[in-house]
Amino acid sequence: MKLLSFRYEGKEGFGPKVKKEEAVWDLVAIQQQLEVLPAFPTQLIEGIPQGMEFVEQIRKLTEAAVQSDRSEEFKHSFAEIEWLAPISKTPKNIIAIGKNYADHAKEMGGEAPTDLVVFTKASTSISADGETVSVHSDVTDSYDYEGELAVVIGKAGHKIPKQMAYDYVFGYTIANDLTARDLQAKHQQYFLGKSLAGSCPVGPYIVTKDEIPQSQNLSIVTKVNDEIRQNGNTENMIRRVDELIAEVSKYVALEPGDILLTGTPAGVGKGFTPPKFLKAGDTVKVSIESIGTLVTHLS
Amino acid sequence: MKLLSFRYEGKEGFGPKVKKEEAVWDLVAIQQQLEVLPAFPTQLIEGIPQGMEFVEQIRKLTEAAVQSDRSEEFKHSFAEIEWLAPISKTPKNIIAIGKNYADHAKEMGGEAPTDLVVFTKASTSISADGETVSVHSDVTDSYDYEGELAVVIGKAGHKIPKQMAYDYVFGYTIANDLTARDLQAKHQQYFLGKSLAGSCPVGPYIVTKDEIPQSQNLSIVTKVNDEIRQNGNTENMIRRVDELIAEVSKYVALEPGDILLTGTPAGVGKGFTPPKFLKAGDTVKVSIESIGTLVTHLS
Repeated sequence: MKLLSFRYEGKEGFGPKVKKEEAVWDLVAIQQQLEVLPAFPTQLIEGIPQGMEFVEQIRKLTEAAVQSDRSEEFKHSFAEIEWLAPISKTPKNIIAIGKNYADHAKEMGGEAPTDLVVFTKASTSISADGETVSVHSDVTDSYDYEGELAVVIGKAGHKIPKQMAYDYVFGYTIANDLTARDLQAKHQQYFLGKSLAGSCPVGPYIVTKDEIPQSQNLSIVTKVNDEIRQNGNTENMIRRVDELIAEVSKYVALEPGDILLTGTPAGVGKGFTPPKFLKAGDTVKVSIESIGTLVTHLS
Repeated sequence: MKLLSFRYEGKEGFGPKVKKEEAVWDLVAIQQQLEVLPAFPTQLIEGIPQGMEFVEQIRKLTEAAVQSDRSEEFKHSFAEIEWLAPISKTPKNIIAIGKNYADHAKEMGGEAPTDLVVFTKASTSISADGETVSVHSDVTDSYDYEGELAVVIGKAGHKIPKQMAYDYVFGYTIANDLTARDLQAKHQQYFLGKSLAGSCPVGPYIVTKDEIPQSQNLSIVTKVNDEIRQNGNTENMIRRVDELIAEVSKYVALEPGDILLTGTPAGVGKGFTPPKFLKAGDTVKVSIESIGTLVTHLS
């Protein structure tokens, strides 16, 4: 199931992509009109802690819509909606892993780190698929892209054993860990250079984990203006999703709705000679197999 | 006004310290019983965006309680309450500044950084005054204290000019930036080593800014088991509160309820030879002039 959040006629909603159509089911409208369930969330993040039960509820709602003679009323075509980030505000800052692909560690001028490098991006930096984000030329001259597989946590956990880690996953999405390289370097700790407004595009969908049984074998491609810059595969992560969840949660309590960025493969702008940083007018597209394409316009 | 959050007879509440008494006004109870105002928050963080208007509302409620013949009913003595962190969950992670006192930068083995060092602590690491926090001997052998002045942001802002910075302050509190020194060092980015459960004691009060017109002249003393370890003054900050707000918000949008830790003076455990890290059974007390004393027990 591919879940998205949207605005339609001024109202926020969420729902699954309609199969084989470029449209979304408006779950809040279905529930309000048909009263299928005793209760149902009004925001995607509220349902996530219910995990696969939530997915089951969504199936009930869409089936009820199909069986009603009003199903067209409950679908909005992608042309009619404004896309929102699937989760517009994470419970904590976005948690991100540095240098988790060996080829990227090398292009950044070093070895892959022995110990996990974990930093955060302010939740106020989340932006949506299709959104226009500033290159922030007032504070940086080296704004860069990093396409990444993002894990959406579905269950609260602390010190999660590696073999239980996938129980704590709700699904997967795509993120672009936009980074001001000069600020990242000169401020030592990455937080400022990683948290400029709009610097965490997320989306377009959260794909529930039942549709991605193997998240370590997905191609990940980043294009800038249709030039391929990153062409990797999640099989090349140094630490895999289950190890990341185990190791981060060994120290920090995770919560449903937390988003964990799993690192970027080689091919970021800083890795080229001369560097290829983002300019106003550029468009970045991050595509991950089985999920989709996350588009960001720069201004 | 010294504001605190508490639990009394199983219910959470908040209110100002009663002047000259070791007790708190239960604002939620006053409003429920006397219906003084058309509406009033049930949590301290909900009122903070209203700034001094919120403080004015609180004055109205406590005056109404005094004028009623039931004022004893609306006061709870400190002996009867469980102290909670004044803000139990910040809108973003706690934002913290590294090496903002020259003497501390020196004891950590370096110069004061030219550019601001900013990291975050997970909001799940917040703990309350008087709480018992583990020394986390399963993951660290160097758990350390850092007494700090904490600024509570009262108004959303981005790129705040330095001369406007105090308009964005709601008040001040005390924090202890508990840190696993080994994790801080080996993971490069500070987030993991700064975010262990309970690693951000905050409180006991938020003192509204009208009572602290000059926050750069406050003594700050940290004791471990009544031995003075840190004995500093906020006048020795390298960057002052207004500069910190201006510089952080130049990059990252601030929100009401955000907590900004302003750095620690010399005297942390790591600064001693041999180091004096925390042990189970220790008690740490951070005292800041005009605010109070924040107590943490280690287990």
